[in-house]
Amino acid sequence: MIIKKEIRVIGFDDGPFAHKAGKRSEKAQVLVVGVILRAKEYLDGVLSTYVDLDGLDATDKIIRLVNKSKHFDQLRVILFNGLAVAGFNLIDIHKVSTETGKAVIAVTSKKPDRERFIEALKNLDRYEERRDIVGRAGDVKNIEVRGKKMYFQYAGTTENEAMTILTKASYRSATPEAIRIAHIIASGIVDGESRGRP
Amino acid sequence: MIIKKEIRVIGFDDGPFAHKAGKRSEKAQVLVVGVILRAKEYLDGVLSTYVDLDGLDATDKIIRLVNKSKHFDQLRVILFNGLAVAGFNLIDIHKVSTETGKAVIAVTSKKPDRERFIEALKNLDRYEERRDIVGRAGDVKNIEVRGKKMYFQYAGTTENEAMTILTKASYRSATPEAIRIAHIIASGIVDGESRGRP
Repeated sequence: MIIKKEIRVIGFDDGPFAHKAGKRSEKAQVLVVGVILRAKEYLDGVLSTYVDLDGLDATDKIIRLVNKSKHFDQLRVILFNGLAVAGFNLIDIHKVSTETGKAVIAVTSKKPDRERFIEALKNLDRYEERRDIVGRAGDVKNIEVRGKKMYFQYAGTTENEAMTILTKASYRSATPEAIRIAHIIASGIVDGESRGRP
Repeated sequence: MIIKKEIRVIGFDDGPFAHKAGKRSEKAQVLVVGVILRAKEYLDGVLSTYVDLDGLDATDKIIRLVNKSKHFDQLRVILFNGLAVAGFNLIDIHKVSTETGKAVIAVTSKKPDRERFIEALKNLDRYEERRDIVGRAGDVKNIEVRGKKMYFQYAGTTENEAMTILTKASYRSATPEAIRIAHIIASGIVDGESRGRP
């Protein structure tokens, strides 16, 4: 695809959870926020939903949110802060891409430790399903943007296109701007004030 | 005060309420979101609180939110979308300015009809208190920005400074950018998708 300077992306991140109660509750609902940015940094829209802490409902809920959005036609790319939200609520990036028709990239600034991650999944229900989602996401690639590495997996696009998208979407730091803002919003809503970095 | 190009402002707006239930519930809690913008449009932080629909707790809750914010020292200006949030939960702009030490501006793109507004207050409890808050806010001034009028009241600053602040804060439309974004976030969180204009 042709990647215009003004490409419209949505970036998702989740809010904090259970930090006040001091322990994880399996029934906790976690806020997930999507921020739609146009033309560099013009904030065009905000989507939100709640998903189960350590559940497996995030993929379908996010697909529905994107597909019913009034911004659907203009959206080109869906960005996630890693492969999971709300603890281990895994995002099946290939399913998201297939069912929305958009390019999907899961990106982090820390190198994912896949073995340790899969080991942690063993403590949860539906382990095989979770492991397969991680497996399907493919190898972790990396790119250097402004001297900092970003680690990513992608679906519905090519590695080269994903690198171009990440470079354009991350013009301030090694975090795509839409994810940075989604993080600020989600924590600002849940805690009353935004905190830290995604 | 010297108004730098990079002046840091916080703009507040409220989320939708009671539209699903179809009627106003006096006990409803309404989300209020504050967006901190730096250097034109760099989103630095998000604050949030809940206030009573048609209550009178917004002024104190917002003062507390601003005063305990980690962005407090950098903030210069507090912007409101009119004199009320959550229905008729009035903002005492002079009290906000006195207790935060910041310039405060309540701004709308529609000309406020003060007589009709005060008439509507008569249907609520603590009428005199509400009327006095509106009275204390002072005359409504106006300014034309990019061919569109903005109507405003101010505290802790001068009319001229307020006009300079509004012009700098509203570089895209006749709504200050921080208020525009606060509106998108508040409705995106409450409804799942942002809608309309502030």
